Amino acid sequence: MAMNGETRLLPILGDPVRQVRAPLVWNGLFQVNGVNAACLPVHVAPADLAGLVTAMRGIRNLIGLIVTVPHKPAASVLAARLLPRAARVGAVNVLRPEEDGSWTGDMLDGEGFVRGLRRAGQPPEGRRALILGAGGVGAAIASSLAGAGVAAIGIADQDPARAAALARKLEGAGIETGVVDPAARGFDLLVNATPLGLHAEDPLPFDTAQLVPGTIVGDVVMGHTASRLVTLAQEAGCFAQAGTVLMEEQLPAMAEFFGLPSGEYGPQAVARVTGA
Amino acid sequence: MAMNGETRLLPILGDPVRQVRAPLVWNGLFQVNGVNAACLPVHVAPADLAGLVTAMRGIRNLIGLIVTVPHKPAASVLAARLLPRAARVGAVNVLRPEEDGSWTGDMLDGEGFVRGLRRAGQPPEGRRALILGAGGVGAAIASSLAGAGVAAIGIADQDPARAAALARKLEGAGIETGVVDPAARGFDLLVNATPLGLHAEDPLPFDTAQLVPGTIVGDVVMGHTASRLVTLAQEAGCFAQAGTVLMEEQLPAMAEFFGLPSGEYGPQAVARVTGA
Repeated sequence: MAMNGETRLLPILGDPVRQVRAPLVWNGLFQVNGVNAACLPVHVAPADLAGLVTAMRGIRNLIGLIVTVPHKPAASVLAARLLPRAARVGAVNVLRPEEDGSWTGDMLDGEGFVRGLRRAGQPPEGRRALILGAGGVGAAIASSLAGAGVAAIGIADQDPARAAALARKLEGAGIETGVVDPAARGFDLLVNATPLGLHAEDPLPFDTAQLVPGTIVGDVVMGHTASRLVTLAQEAGCFAQAGTVLMEEQLPAMAEFFGLPSGEYGPQAVARVTGA
Repeated sequence: MAMNGETRLLPILGDPVRQVRAPLVWNGLFQVNGVNAACLPVHVAPADLAGLVTAMRGIRNLIGLIVTVPHKPAASVLAARLLPRAARVGAVNVLRPEEDGSWTGDMLDGEGFVRGLRRAGQPPEGRRALILGAGGVGAAIASSLAGAGVAAIGIADQDPARAAALARKLEGAGIETGVVDPAARGFDLLVNATPLGLHAEDPLPFDTAQLVPGTIVGDVVMGHTASRLVTLAQEAGCFAQAGTVLMEEQLPAMAEFFGLPSGEYGPQAVARVTGA
């Protein structure tokens, strides 16, 4: 679908932005669904972010903004309204323009994780989650899990202060949270939110003794093949969710948030448009 | 060519923007020339223009901005530097980001008119030009002609004050200028910069007695077929330039202004990408 004067815009803001896959994926989905819209990369430095996001509210043919590294925390401050899972962690990856001239923000990075589990028939309700890695993606997954009805969330991180900060942010969600050791037992939803596994020589993020049937394992590491963690978990009889699911299952959540016309935005449509 | 994270941006700003052809034409030219770039429509109201243009200077993968109605005069104020033909008329239709964080502006609407004449072997040097219509496009053509070596420019407009204002703006160019009657004689380059001719019942902008061999006639009215003025002028033995030439011949000037990779940006390439 060629752009014309009626094309609506969905910029993705990052620094750098060269690596983002959103334009390729979204423009493919727009084409599949017959939506006259374009997702375009916008490279903006942290110092220029607030001015640009504020001014972009003046663009009348804007669907919204996707926000990526390193702008997710800073962009949350620019929203007049945050959905609870974004407010908990103080970060957004999507901003939606409202009629009153303001932005509403949400954090959907963890939503793909939760939606993937539900689609696979592995709902997180009542689970005790151990999240290894309290960085941006770990915080987003923790916040989405907190909103999805898990019973408890333990946070582990090389940096205990970072783990403690995330645990404090989750306190308002009314579930049991705390800082734990990566080797802690008593959890049945294990989430690797660290880069461990990107390289073949990386140690496993969890003690393999914890990989027992009935345990759910989720990885954020993406790759063309399953990560070593995912493979081992499956061999041990766990349900294991690969890192790519986070991204693919997030797209329908974004479509809903932005109020896009109904259509196919799920993993099958993505596979078709990316040729994966 | 599918957009990805490395795509550079060429927004066109207008209010409304629905009608613009630039995204269609430019994206076709980018594809023909193998340039990873996208021209996209940006609908912005006058009240939001200054803030948005200023903030857009923070976009690092920006080729530049195309500015259309009604923002051309207001955008000129936002440029730290104006090329002479833009400075004369106080309006820009292109803004280029400079290394120092500022904008340079130019007005290329009249450049297509002049380039068309040169390509046709009808250089404007030494001609005495009568321009009917002192609005935006008339001013742009007058300013480009003033920079292209015409001997004199007479301005005619229904509104004498508007004609006088344009004549004053051209004074600094060092050529004979003044307000004249549309029926004035002694001109050998007649430019219709009014909408007269858009409708079949419109009167002709000039006295047909002036259409004599050796006179150049230029029209700004665009259409699928030649305007009545162009047809009559050709029948009278004049060289006549159609309105579409302004747009098509302006594209290579824009490519130069923005420093785009060398390639085909001329009328033949445009005809190919628009299927015209």
